[in-house]
Amino acid sequence: MNASTRCAVALRFLALGAMLLFGPQVEAQTDALPSWNDGAAKKAIVDFVQATTTQGGPKFVPPAERIAVFDQDGTLWVEHPIYAQVMFVLDRVPAVVKAKPELAAVEPFKTVMSGNREAIGKLSEGDLLKLVAATSTGMSVESFQSEAKKWISEARDPRWKRPYTDLTYLPMQEVLKYLRANGYKTYIVTGGGQDFVRAFAEGTYGIPPEQVVGSAGGTKYGYAKDGKPFLTKDPKLLLNDNNAGKPESIHLMIGRRPSMAVGNSTGDQQMLEYTTAGEGARLSMIVLHDDATREYAYGPARGLASTRVGAFTQKLYDEALKQGWVVISMKNDWNRVFAFQ
Amino acid sequence: MNASTRCAVALRFLALGAMLLFGPQVEAQTDALPSWNDGAAKKAIVDFVQATTTQGGPKFVPPAERIAVFDQDGTLWVEHPIYAQVMFVLDRVPAVVKAKPELAAVEPFKTVMSGNREAIGKLSEGDLLKLVAATSTGMSVESFQSEAKKWISEARDPRWKRPYTDLTYLPMQEVLKYLRANGYKTYIVTGGGQDFVRAFAEGTYGIPPEQVVGSAGGTKYGYAKDGKPFLTKDPKLLLNDNNAGKPESIHLMIGRRPSMAVGNSTGDQQMLEYTTAGEGARLSMIVLHDDATREYAYGPARGLASTRVGAFTQKLYDEALKQGWVVISMKNDWNRVFAFQ
Repeated sequence: MNASTRCAVALRFLALGAMLLFGPQVEAQTDALPSWNDGAAKKAIVDFVQATTTQGGPKFVPPAERIAVFDQDGTLWVEHPIYAQVMFVLDRVPAVVKAKPELAAVEPFKTVMSGNREAIGKLSEGDLLKLVAATSTGMSVESFQSEAKKWISEARDPRWKRPYTDLTYLPMQEVLKYLRANGYKTYIVTGGGQDFVRAFAEGTYGIPPEQVVGSAGGTKYGYAKDGKPFLTKDPKLLLNDNNAGKPESIHLMIGRRPSMAVGNSTGDQQMLEYTTAGEGARLSMIVLHDDATREYAYGPARGLASTRVGAFTQKLYDEALKQGWVVISMKNDWNRVFAFQ
Repeated sequence: MNASTRCAVALRFLALGAMLLFGPQVEAQTDALPSWNDGAAKKAIVDFVQATTTQGGPKFVPPAERIAVFDQDGTLWVEHPIYAQVMFVLDRVPAVVKAKPELAAVEPFKTVMSGNREAIGKLSEGDLLKLVAATSTGMSVESFQSEAKKWISEARDPRWKRPYTDLTYLPMQEVLKYLRANGYKTYIVTGGGQDFVRAFAEGTYGIPPEQVVGSAGGTKYGYAKDGKPFLTKDPKLLLNDNNAGKPESIHLMIGRRPSMAVGNSTGDQQMLEYTTAGEGARLSMIVLHDDATREYAYGPARGLASTRVGAFTQKLYDEALKQGWVVISMKNDWNRVFAFQ
């Protein structure tokens, strides 16, 4: 090998190393959001990320401050006909009644055990909270974790007959990855149970437990017979992560105002307001479920059907326009909804 | 420039790039803990980090699960003669009394305004909580943040006449950096106020707000006259991050059991127990203040003086030996205590 050949080999070798090292950045030049149709929503996301990551630019956000928060139910995955966590709770009732047979005669357990879907559909929020307390507290955090993981791996949704974790929106998964590739920390801020969502968020969204903020009861520290310490899930609600509870929990758990927030219902309004009210570049977005064919259509904004689950009222729609929040039309902005389609 | 020179220039340029890229890893080969004397404590830290980061090894911990938690007062910085936050609260009392003159005649404000150090030193925990509520709640989270930042930049400790943020232990700063260089997320888990510690943790320890877990009141979401939303600090205590409250808050805020925990007082015992009780590699450490010359000496473990602030009892010392927690002797394990010395 002469000097020139050696040089060529050495350069090629180093170039290969550079390619491996710089690969991800080079890839970022391609479309990071292929499931999004070209339009105002996609443009808003790309413009926001470019503006906040352009060093020296007027809207630059230092990496440590790049926080993006996402509601889960109806924003990252399907919430109709009913929240997955409600199915989890209902599915756990028989085991709870088996352990405590006296509950079979007590409401709301009696209704759930009857299997009468119509009656179950009419259970009040208070009834649901009773069911959550009975099925999701009183055990160690590890026991709950493994029960939730087991359920999520086995349960199938009623329409597509697929694991609930298949029902995440591909365009949103792309946004999460795009943000992280640009130095953003992505958080879930959900009205759902924090421990429930933590059981699958890492595998499903790449979001670790410490970046899941949700409704939460406390825990009680104690010792097993062998002296080993453990935490028991306590029924007392500590954080109600809906409406005003969302920005309150964001302050408690994150301590920074997010640069970006995405939601889909009235329960997300305060989180979007709080995000928008910060200084500098902010992006607030809200998903409109207007695609009955590929998913569901409900509002009642813009004349869509009313719903008990994840309501997006006309008032919220008007507020979105007033505040400059980007409304994401599932029908028009997404060319694919699910990865399996 | 001939081909050979061009090649040499190109190679040097690429080698420079490689050095810049691989610099941190190469540096990690040198002593990451120069302020630690060779001994059991230093060895325990290095062995733990090597074992948990050796891919394929029996104690390997995946990067996403690498969590290390540190108490603050007495573990990362000086807590004697009194916690810095107590000084902050006492220093704010005159402004509070000026705004509400009727408080001047009410305890514990009357005692604080008297300037009688002995009487102030005897205030009960209940009195202190009243002072915290009066001085640290009722304002927006941003107002509190800027008050705390201002105080921390101006206040001087009584012994060294330096900013409190100079009184962090250099050996602990080295441990934080060493852990982070090895993929660990470092958290503060403090009995002190979460918002107070967040005001300086990023600049002082490189620990961002979302990785500060502390005692916390709630906040209330509301709107200013111009319609802008804001959060007001609420006096009701939501998280008491001492004793059993530490593992409880770790579950709430982090959702994973830490691999490593460091504390210095009875208030840290449950956090250390909880960390130790996990499976796989765990490292629990506890700082013994046995250096009256360079810092302070208090226990009362091992015959050291008793203290109201950061007690390390003989019972805790015995428990540490029983559980295999590594006792860090400030006198023997650290060759430097502060960066300014």
